[in-house]
Formats: sequence, structure tokens, C-alpha cells
Amino acid sequence: MNQPTRPALPAASTSLWPDSRFSQRYGLSLPVALAPMALASGGALAAACADAGALGLVGGGYGDLAWTQREYTLALQAKSTRRIGCGFITWKLDEDASALDWLLDQAEADLPRALMLSFGDPRPYAARLQARGVDLICQIQRLEQLPLALEAGAQVVVAQGAEAGGHGMNALNGRATFTLVPELADALAAQSPATLLLAAGGIADGRTLAASRVLGADGALVGSRLWASQESLAPAGAKAQAVASTGDGTARSEVFDILRRKNWPAPFDFRALRNPLHQAWESHVEALRQDPAAARADYDAGVAEQDYRRAHATVGEGVGLIHDCPPAAQILQAMGEEARQRLGG
Amino acid sequence: MNQPTRPALPAASTSLWPDSRFSQRYGLSLPVALAPMALASGGALAAACADAGALGLVGGGYGDLAWTQREYTLALQAKSTRRIGCGFITWKLDEDASALDWLLDQAEADLPRALMLSFGDPRPYAARLQARGVDLICQIQRLEQLPLALEAGAQVVVAQGAEAGGHGMNALNGRATFTLVPELADALAAQSPATLLLAAGGIADGRTLAASRVLGADGALVGSRLWASQESLAPAGAKAQAVASTGDGTARSEVFDILRRKNWPAPFDFRALRNPLHQAWESHVEALRQDPAAARADYDAGVAEQDYRRAHATVGEGVGLIHDCPPAAQILQAMGEEARQRLGG
Ligand SMILES: Cc1cc2nc3c(=O)[nH]c(=O)nc-3n(C[C@H](O)[C@H](O)[C@H](O)COP(=O)(O)O)c2cc1C
Ligand SMILES: Cc1cc2nc3c(=O)[nH]c(=O)nc-3n(C[C@H](O)[C@H](O)[C@H](O)COP(=O)(O)O)c2cc1C
Repeated sequence: MNQPTRPALPAASTSLWPDSRFSQRYGLSLPVALAPMALASGGALAAACADAGALGLVGGGYGDLAWTQREYTLALQAKSTRRIGCGFITWKLDEDASALDWLLDQAEADLPRALMLSFGDPRPYAARLQARGVDLICQIQRLEQLPLALEAGAQVVVAQGAEAGGHGMNALNGRATFTLVPELADALAAQSPATLLLAAGGIADGRTLAASRVLGADGALVGSRLWASQESLAPAGAKAQAVASTGDGTARSEVFDILRRKNWPAPFDFRALRNPLHQAWESHVEALRQDPAAARADYDAGVAEQDYRRAHATVGEGVGLIHDCPPAAQILQAMGEEARQRLGG
Repeated sequence: MNQPTRPALPAASTSLWPDSRFSQRYGLSLPVALAPMALASGGALAAACADAGALGLVGGGYGDLAWTQREYTLALQAKSTRRIGCGFITWKLDEDASALDWLLDQAEADLPRALMLSFGDPRPYAARLQARGVDLICQIQRLEQLPLALEAGAQVVVAQGAEAGGHGMNALNGRATFTLVPELADALAAQSPATLLLAAGGIADGRTLAASRVLGADGALVGSRLWASQESLAPAGAKAQAVASTGDGTARSEVFDILRRKNWPAPFDFRALRNPLHQAWESHVEALRQDPAAARADYDAGVAEQDYRRAHATVGEGVGLIHDCPPAAQILQAMGEEARQRLGG
């Protein structure tokens, strides 16, 4: 591989902040997108983020039509509807894309500003988005996934490091935010300089947001930090468990996917709080896969009772930087202020 | 956990750079330490780094006395001998600390400026260092390891993320540089504000060095990027293999430790290029552990023939930011310049 050409940054650091190509494209006052977290990023959270100056992506997740209709409609109550979009899990769309199609059937004024696709081949959906002028955001986990995203014509690529909460690459295949972002920045500079780059995985305060910019991203996709907000639909018990955890307290594995009967394709797995039920199975994943019945009963009871020693609480390593669950606007304002201070803007 | 107090950074970003408490303490012109990479960080590399303004730590590794004597003596040929130190693998010192004792027996002028201990309990060695006025640098991988380092009186704590080359925490226990550094910065601010913090794992260019500072570190420990230097003792074939790899091309596992007959304690494993021999065994580690003979013969032949489809080449994910093997001084100068530019200094 030849040394890629790296775009020279203007010398004055103030130009790093608050302006970014990402902010400009979506009319944001903060170069941040709410991650489309399945079941957590509901309409109220997306609207709160949009009105606070970020891009609010509703968590369409596995593509449930009724949920998407309800929450997207709620999100459109934002004052800033041009900052509202939605996200889906791509391999699930391959089974049922009715929620995506419903969004793309909206009248011009109600169309999502952007749709984010993760975990699968985005190309089959690209033409439908393009026909309605809806931006495509592709979340990837490895450099080798970039060609598919570019072929699909993504306007924005999200570099998701394995420290992220929720699904991502498993241990052998995972990349970290810290090295993936600059490497993708170089690749885009060489191959597709107009494509924007967001960092994802561990962006949970102003320092990590500022570092994303320094590493070469145009902005950041924020999950866990906004999951732990007042508006997020995550259960209160899960949020409390997360606030009490340090960043040492999460792990990636297939345990919760097996317990939840989710047939995720290899090589994806899932990061959440490493609770006692996870610890009991994390070194016996094959045995769990072979005979999951008893553990599933245990897990189901945990969910029913909101007992987070057994139920999952989905957050990433950034949870060590999270100490409260305020309104989303307050989180975003504090992130912006601290990032600006760090970058001297 | 209560919200820790975070020290306010001065508003002007120029103050981030080039000055740092780490540079001040060791009289550096760049807040960087050469990682004490076993067998790679020899005396010539340590001296080159010291003379280029960084802290040069000789790779004492497993504590081989003759190797340490030879390479440390070579390192003292640096013009800047007050920037020379050494590092050891702590659990190996517990078996034989003769190399450490030899260093601490040097005359005042030849004493190492600092010793770095990683992978084990540093406390048994703290008094010996203190008696000679030698600084203790402790490398840790998780927040929960901080108390032992502080108890040992470490002047510097290194936060090593799992993207690092060489040994570190395994998949279930690993933390990433991006979240570990700010979380440790908060913990130190609350518990031991005089202790310095370095980031390690993925720092391979000016962007990642600048991001380390933005995340709250006083500087960075650099391994892989200086491994791929002219002065490094790593085999030429391994360096060539690394330069040709992207950051997707590494993985962590116990495979190479089993092949190399190294009895590392849990939960440590090892990141290196994910070559065909690694790929053949990475999903069958227990089988390899039970019956390693044939695979070891294959590995040994690979080492003898410098065939890096079988022999290991030890680098981290930052290898995707490495495209050449110039002299160390050139690497450090470019890192410094790019970091300064990124931070607007
Ligand atoms: C609770 C939760 C649910 C998530 N669900 C989805 C999802 O449905 N689709 C998706 O693309 N990403 C999902 N993610 C991953 C996010 O898109 C993003 O990569 C991640 O949150 C970034 O890391 P962070 O959690 O450290 O901010 C989810 C993350 C969390 C925490
Ligand atoms: C070739 C190689 C050998 C290493 N040997 C040691 C060692 O003997 N002792 C130690 O504390 N760390 C060792 N490390 C880890 C480094 O101290 C450091 O954490 C790591 O190199 C930082 O990540 P980076 O490689 O991405 O720069 C080694 C790393 C490499 C790449």
C-alpha cells in the first residue's frame, strides 16, 4: 500500500471546531449524530437531539414496521425535522424492508434526512434512497468493508470501533476506534475525499468527541452516552446499572444474542454490561449454543423482573465516562463545550 | 462512583503542545517514550530515541541478563543518557530479577532514568527503585489495576489499550486506548493528581499522538511505529511484512505464546500479524494447547527460514498507519510536527 495523501489541516485549531463538513451538510451546531439504537433511540430522543443541534437517528433496528412508524412520527415533532433520520440493521432488511419502504414513501417534507445501514451489504438499498434524495450513512467495522460502502454511494461512513455498545465485530475481527478512524480517513482522502467520516465507539464526553476530530473524523456517532439520557427508551434499571459501572464492566460475546434468540451472522457479536449471567456463559459459548433452554429461562425471568444480574444492559466501554442520565440536550451541550475547550476553539 | 473532578485545561490549545508534565520531568522535546519491546528495543534504538528528544526504554523483556547488559550499555552511548531507561515483564522478574538488580547496581551516572514494569504486581520491586532514585513506570490494561500501581508509588502510569502490539489483555478483559485513557485521567485526577499518564496502543502518527493529549494523557508510549524503524532489532522480513499490512491484518490470541512455549499467565494474550499459521489455529486454541508438537515444528521452521506466513511479526493495529521503516529520529520528528499541527500549536 502506498502512503496515502493526507489532506493538510488548516493550522489554526479553531477551524477544527465547531465547523465541520458534517455539521455543514446537515445544518448542525454540533458534529454529532445520535446512534440509531434499536429500542432505545425512540422519537423523543431523536427529536431532543435534533433540537439540540445534532442529527437524530431513530433506532429502526430490526425493522419492526409499527415501532418505526410510531417513533419516527414522534421524532417529526422536533422543531428541526431536517435533522431527523433513521437507522436499520441491514441483514434484517434483507428479510423485511417494509419499514424502510414506509419511510421512503413519506411526502417530501417528512422524508428522513438520512438513513443509516449497518451490518450487511448496503448496495441493494442504495438506489431506493437515491431516488428520494435521502442520504446513505454506512457503518463499518473494518477497512476492508469500505469498498462496499463507497460502491453503495454512501455520503457518510461511520467507523465503528469494537469498544462500542451493542453489535459490532467479534474479538478476532474487531478494530478499535483509535486506529480505525485515522486509517479510514487516509483511505477516504485517497479514494473518495467527498465522503464524510464519523467516529463511533467510546465517544461519551467532550474529550472523546474532540479526539475524534483530531484523529481525522468529521464528527461522531454517539450511542451509549445518549442511551443513558432521560429521553432514551432504555429501562430505568438498566440505566442505573450502567451509571454504577466502570468501563472495565462490559464485554463482547455472543452470549446475549443466543439468550435473546437472535441469529446474528458471523463475525458479529454484542457488547453489554458483563453481568453474572454473562460471566457464567462467556467461556462456554458453544455449550450454550447447543443447549440454551435453561439459560434462556433464566434470562427471560431476568428481563421480566428487570433484574440486571441476568437481563442485558447494552452499553459500551464509554460507560466509564458516564455518571448520570440527564436530558439529551444537556449531554450534548456539555460535550460540545468540553470539546471546544480541548481544541482551544 | 461519583463524578470525578476533572482538571480544567487552559483554554489556549498551544499550551497542550509541546509542553507536557511528562516532557518536563524527563527533559524531552516530545512527550513520547519508546516502548521497551523485548528483543526489538535494543540499545541503538533507545539511544536514537533519546537523542531525538524522547525517553528511550530498552526492551529488557523477559529479563535476560546478558542481553540487558549488552543493549543497555549500548544505549548509554546516547548523547542524552538521562533519557535512557529499561522495561521488564513483571511476572518474569518474579522468577529472576538479576537484570533489574544489575541496572540498579550501576554508578549514579549510569543508572536508568526510569524502569517500566508491565504484566504483574510491581510492588515487590518498588523499594529497590526508590532506594536508587529510579522512577517507576507501570503499564496497566484496566482501571482496576490502578490501585496496585499507585501503591507501588509509580511516577508514571501507562494505559495500554488492547489495540497495542505484543502482550496485553485478552478479548474478554481488554480495554481500548480510546476509553481507557480518559477514564484513567479522571481516576488520577481524583486519587493521585501528581502521577503522570501515558497512552499506549495505536499511537503511530501525529494524529494519534495529538489525540492522546486531547484524551487526557501527558504523553504516549510508542511501540509498533518504532519497531518499524531502521534501528529496531526486529527482523527485516518481519518489518517488510508489517509495512505491507493494513490495520485489519492483526489479531490477539494465545496462539503464538503456545507456539513459542511461553507460559504467560491468564488473562494476557498477544497481538501480532494474523498470518496463515495463526489463522489455522486461532479457533482451535484448546486443541493447540493439548497437542502443540506439529504446529511448533512448523512455527520453528518458519522462524529459521524467516517465513512470516508461519513466524510471528509483532505489531498492533497501528500498523495500518505505518508505511515505511525510516530512522527513529525521522519518525519522531514527523509525529511531533503532525501532532503540533493538529493541535494548532
Ligand atoms: C443500546 C444500543 C443499541 C444499538 N443498536 C444498534 C442498531 O440497532 N443499529 C446499529 O446500526 N447500531 C446499533 N448500535 C451501535 C451504534 O450504532 C454505535 O455504533 C455505538 O453505540 C457507538 O458506540 P458507543 O455506544 O460507545 O457510543 C447500538 C448501540 C447501543 C449502545
Ligand atoms: C514487538 C513488541 C514487543 C513488546 N514487548 C514488550 C515487553 O517486553 N514489555 C512490555 O512491557 N511491553 C511490550 N510491548 C508492548 C508495549 O509496551 C506497548 O504497550 C505497545 O507497543 C503499545 O502499542 P503499539 O504497539 O500500538 O504502539 C511490546 C510491543 C511490541 C510491538
